[in-house]
Amino acid sequence: MTDIVRVDGRTTDQLRPVTIERGWSDQAEGSALISFGRTKVLCTASFTNGVPRWMAGKGKGWVTAEYSMLPRSTDSRMDRESVKGRIGGRTHEISRLVGRSLRAVVDMKALGENTIVLDCDVLQADGGTRTAAITGAYVALADALEWGREKKFLSQKAQPLIDSVSAISVGIVGGVPMLDLAYVEDSKAETDMNVVVTGRGLFVEVQGTAEGAPFDRQELNSLLDLALAGTVSLTEFQKTALGR
Amino acid sequence: MTDIVRVDGRTTDQLRPVTIERGWSDQAEGSALISFGRTKVLCTASFTNGVPRWMAGKGKGWVTAEYSMLPRSTDSRMDRESVKGRIGGRTHEISRLVGRSLRAVVDMKALGENTIVLDCDVLQADGGTRTAAITGAYVALADALEWGREKKFLSQKAQPLIDSVSAISVGIVGGVPMLDLAYVEDSKAETDMNVVVTGRGLFVEVQGTAEGAPFDRQELNSLLDLALAGTVSLTEFQKTALGR
Amino acid sequence: MTDIVRVDGRTTDQLRPVTIERGWSDQAEGSALISFGRTKVLCTASFTNGVPRWMAGKGKGWVTAEYSMLPRSTDSRMDRESVKGRIGGRTHEISRLVGRSLRAVVDMKALGENTIVLDCDVLQADGGTRTAAITGAYVALADALEWGREKKFLSQKAQPLIDSVSAISVGIVGGVPMLDLAYVEDSKAETDMNVVVTGRGLFVEVQGTAEGAPFDRQELNSLLDLALAGTVSLTEFQKTALGR
Amino acid sequence: MTDIVRVDGRTTDQLRPVTIERGWSDQAEGSALISFGRTKVLCTASFTNGVPRWMAGKGKGWVTAEYSMLPRSTDSRMDRESVKGRIGGRTHEISRLVGRSLRAVVDMKALGENTIVLDCDVLQADGGTRTAAITGAYVALADALEWGREKKFLSQKAQPLIDSVSAISVGIVGGVPMLDLAYVEDSKAETDMNVVVTGRGLFVEVQGTAEGAPFDRQELNSLLDLALAGTVSLTEFQKTALGR
Amino acid sequence: MTDIVRVDGRTTDQLRPVTIERGWSDQAEGSALISFGRTKVLCTASFTNGVPRWMAGKGKGWVTAEYSMLPRSTDSRMDRESVKGRIGGRTHEISRLVGRSLRAVVDMKALGENTIVLDCDVLQADGGTRTAAITGAYVALADALEWGREKKFLSQKAQPLIDSVSAISVGIVGGVPMLDLAYVEDSKAETDMNVVVTGRGLFVEVQGTAEGAPFDRQELNSLLDLALAGTVSLTEFQKTALGR
Amino acid sequence: MTDIVRVDGRTTDQLRPVTIERGWSDQAEGSALISFGRTKVLCTASFTNGVPRWMAGKGKGWVTAEYSMLPRSTDSRMDRESVKGRIGGRTHEISRLVGRSLRAVVDMKALGENTIVLDCDVLQADGGTRTAAITGAYVALADALEWGREKKFLSQKAQPLIDSVSAISVGIVGGVPMLDLAYVEDSKAETDMNVVVTGRGLFVEVQGTAEGAPFDRQELNSLLDLALAGTVSLTEFQKTALGR
Repeated sequence: MTDIVRVDGRTTDQLRPVTIERGWSDQAEGSALISFGRTKVLCTASFTNGVPRWMAGKGKGWVTAEYSMLPRSTDSRMDRESVKGRIGGRTHEISRLVGRSLRAVVDMKALGENTIVLDCDVLQADGGTRTAAITGAYVALADALEWGREKKFLSQKAQPLIDSVSAISVGIVGGVPMLDLAYVEDSKAETDMNVVVTGRGLFVEVQGTAEGAPFDRQELNSLLDLALAGTVSLTEFQKTALGR
Repeated sequence: MTDIVRVDGRTTDQLRPVTIERGWSDQAEGSALISFGRTKVLCTASFTNGVPRWMAGKGKGWVTAEYSMLPRSTDSRMDRESVKGRIGGRTHEISRLVGRSLRAVVDMKALGENTIVLDCDVLQADGGTRTAAITGAYVALADALEWGREKKFLSQKAQPLIDSVSAISVGIVGGVPMLDLAYVEDSKAETDMNVVVTGRGLFVEVQGTAEGAPFDRQELNSLLDLALAGTVSLTEFQKTALGR
Repeated sequence: MTDIVRVDGRTTDQLRPVTIERGWSDQAEGSALISFGRTKVLCTASFTNGVPRWMAGKGKGWVTAEYSMLPRSTDSRMDRESVKGRIGGRTHEISRLVGRSLRAVVDMKALGENTIVLDCDVLQADGGTRTAAITGAYVALADALEWGREKKFLSQKAQPLIDSVSAISVGIVGGVPMLDLAYVEDSKAETDMNVVVTGRGLFVEVQGTAEGAPFDRQELNSLLDLALAGTVSLTEFQKTALGR
Repeated sequence: MTDIVRVDGRTTDQLRPVTIERGWSDQAEGSALISFGRTKVLCTASFTNGVPRWMAGKGKGWVTAEYSMLPRSTDSRMDRESVKGRIGGRTHEISRLVGRSLRAVVDMKALGENTIVLDCDVLQADGGTRTAAITGAYVALADALEWGREKKFLSQKAQPLIDSVSAISVGIVGGVPMLDLAYVEDSKAETDMNVVVTGRGLFVEVQGTAEGAPFDRQELNSLLDLALAGTVSLTEFQKTALGR
Repeated sequence: MTDIVRVDGRTTDQLRPVTIERGWSDQAEGSALISFGRTKVLCTASFTNGVPRWMAGKGKGWVTAEYSMLPRSTDSRMDRESVKGRIGGRTHEISRLVGRSLRAVVDMKALGENTIVLDCDVLQADGGTRTAAITGAYVALADALEWGREKKFLSQKAQPLIDSVSAISVGIVGGVPMLDLAYVEDSKAETDMNVVVTGRGLFVEVQGTAEGAPFDRQELNSLLDLALAGTVSLTEFQKTALGR
Repeated sequence: MTDIVRVDGRTTDQLRPVTIERGWSDQAEGSALISFGRTKVLCTASFTNGVPRWMAGKGKGWVTAEYSMLPRSTDSRMDRESVKGRIGGRTHEISRLVGRSLRAVVDMKALGENTIVLDCDVLQADGGTRTAAITGAYVALADALEWGREKKFLSQKAQPLIDSVSAISVGIVGGVPMLDLAYVEDSKAETDMNVVVTGRGLFVEVQGTAEGAPFDRQELNSLLDLALAGTVSLTEFQKTALGR
């Protein structure tokens, strides 16, 4: 799989350079500026004591997420969704994906009646923005939970984080399964798949789409192999960023 | 897998009763009222000669879809999205899924500069509405294409349909992989997966989500096995409905 | 008036075939799929114990209605109002008309602090959708009230229904007053009138509009005669459907 | 009918004082500030040479209307529809009614490819705002048509106005049919009816609603008698205002 | 400065004719129809006992404002913001300006937990609508406060009004600083400035904008001189209107 | 003025540390990440050949701006305007201010039929976001114009930039005029003023608002002195960033 040279010189199973600037924001309870190559996403976690009214009194917390792209994060400028007055389907879809992915590693009972909102704003986009968002949001989340513990909104022994979580894109480009597609690869992929995996190696989401040509079982398996290996690396980056 | 008895007496690998009323609508160029058990979806296909302005002149067609639920298709009444003034994320997500799934089996060149809009309106919901929508929309689409051929918007030898497509949900409920979840099963599933498969057995979409607990590779494989078998049956229902 | 033959062979004072499928929905507390010829409207009644906050504590109930058309209920596809992000004037107008019409036969004191929402969704449209909606909604409403009585949300002796109600369109087409206009007649009518009448023969709404040419008092009287006769028949269909 | 004394001392068949200030606006091609008692509506007619694109090339014109209330035109302040971001059903309904009423007296062929927009803004509301709006809009319309003739957008011999039009409310209050309801009467009326009548005495719209109790044929006839007499007077006020 | 003759014959430091019809509305607690030449703004003040929930319990009141233009207040018709479904930036900006300006002369403690909403609706526009709105709104506000005192919502000795406030536009047109620009002057001004001044001669707002050419310190000073003189006159008109 | 010590140790006439990272974005034709202390704004300039249709054929260009804040740029999280479905008044106001400020230094004739959109997204907010936005946007604009020249959308000798522009806030806090207010100062200022000044020292905008107490002429003059001195420094930062 490794003698095909990709547009940026990577092997097919190689991630782009990953950086995680933990604590980028002075304001948020947790934050990370993550980059997968040229893709840069600012992830903040806002911790609020209390839950929405419809959830109150159940002793459980809530984690939700919002994803958005700056208008000129892309090669040609997009209109702002605030100006259009409505959020597009893609934005909705990714916000929901990020929220579900992070909720999968949080024990809502242990969180108690606290709410965490994860904001993932894409400052620069070059493919893989949703997977970078999930991977960075985990770091922000972990810090916000620590903040909540320091502020006594969480008890000292509460363990709301039951695992870590990261995500990566894989796809079939020109017949070849590849890891972590850059935009130019993604736009010509026959099949594109986003895979969300916990630190222990379990699947949270598998979202495969045949953009160009339907795929068979063997291709699916190759993509899953790549994704599992990629998320092992991302988990290491997260641990390093968090100083663990 | 077959000695567990489900809430409605099915085995774990059994579909609910499927019916397809082809040509339900007097108005649309193609239509089908499909039911998966108590789930009923009215699918219509609207054929328009011509394409949106931004696509004109390329000799290619366009297929798109919109999904919606009647406010009292569910057990308790939902507010209408038209009244709320905005479409929710779930609706967007499913509309996009249906559209992508049907486009995967259409040769846009062979369709020529024609547009087909698939409307999938859920009249009654009991789990699996998106998979019923895709399966029924295929029947409506096939008829709309025949209509276009009769009206000479398509040439006699054009073959825009390159395959058939159907979809089914699978999930892990109480630790057991099951086919075609009813609402009561879906709402307690640890993992829920929607799989879109062509008549030839290739994947178009694999959308697995760990609602309750992350899943491992073996569970993923069991779910895919169930889904592939289920879509073989659905393909037969489609053929029968279309008289082929 | 009876020797003019209409487009579908009816006499000028003849209704189209009327069918009422009571209890079409498994989910709603009351429901009816009504057809006036090719016009088909699914009417559901949702019973909720309690009233909106601004009405609470007055010992009175509330009945409201929402009307909508499926995008391909008509000959050429209409855009969805949810997609446009706003409800059109016609939809608003008819929703309000249906709500007022049903409220006219409900004793809000006897209903107690309960709310009934009537949803009238047009599955297929061929003229007279609003009158079919009112006529079918009455059947759904009656069943929802029975449901409320069984569930003890209404006392055994409460009589919230003070009369029945139905509605029919009339119009002047080519100078001739006619009952129950099909779409092709409606679209060329000089005057179009919708009349809502109780089972006892009293008017709830008279909405006459000169689309083409203003009308005189004698024409108005002919239209009212036709409408009163038509609603007598509709009342019988309702009684039969309800098994009374 | 005349020995019942109403809240403001009128007889049951008496209009409130009517004033029409023609040409109130310096900007509009036609305008009138009309009052029915304390109800004051500013009506402007905006004449534009040309028609919307979808109407072009047919040699016909277009007349449309928009109705709105100032937030403090009423006894307690209402939220602005612009602030709420959506137009309410009542506003839509009345805008459509005003538009249809004025179109009923315009020959669109004679108008040629010109557009007239009638804006009816309620400055103060005390019942009968929609009927005052129609009555005043006619005066503004007539002046805008003269303006169009002077500017040569209409030929010298074109006669786009085929009749005049005015409107009045009638209702049954405490069992008694009454003309031109003030707000305090309207709010307790059993039945409320708005009637739009041409200068020649033909009906354009008859919109009767049983707010409190259904009405019988005889009551309907009494209301129509009152309305026809009232619009004869209004027609005179219009003629005087227009100096005819 | 006085030998330049302006389009309407005024000197450069001369206001247009000002009229203030106090109590124009029968409904509002305070109102004024103000005109600056052809510019006419209807200002109403709505007094409500109580404050929005988020302000309750602090013993303080609230004053806010909304500004809007009728669609045909201008030379060519504008679309309604309610129809467009969104409020434009200019409307927002002016509403906020009017609100801030009036709040600057109200002692919120002395107002107590009462709310006043100022609605400024432009009936006819010829430049200076925002300054007329502020000047007229003050008169409406003063009357609404008196109403609140009479109704005992304010104590007899409470003095919520700590000063009066008025506003005027100034600008540089053809190199010459001028007071109270009419529309035709405003549209060709190099610099346009709106100045809000209290009765005691203190600034509340200074909003200068170089539409055509940046301005220097000396020009700024000339404009401020003109504005201060103009607001002295406006203060007199307010006093006269209020009978003080 | 210099012996008062401010919250962060500055003198009253001292700017916070200013940094300008020119070319922060790989995608935009011009960009700058500017910081005024903890306030960070990402400014991008998008150059498009051509102008909106309503401007075409006049040989002139267009410059416009959009300002927005990330939801967690502030101390407590704000709802996204895209989620609320409408843009707030403050956002509108600042977007318009930024656009006007930059247009003041562009010769639209020299720009030719090209459009530049300036996006100013606040990543972190600590007072002065609008002034940082204007100051940074100028740098992005200058680079985008160079890009346009290289791409031959501008002729070699065209000089669209007629001056530079920067902006700073000033205010009276505790009776003392101060330069470049941090959030904690701004929120307790009696008067707050934003001043936009060209490189040559001419005013483009003067926006002074008495949030707490009206101000007199002398205070206004002190504020303008501070602002003029501050913008001289900002002009130097801009020159350095642009390598001039």
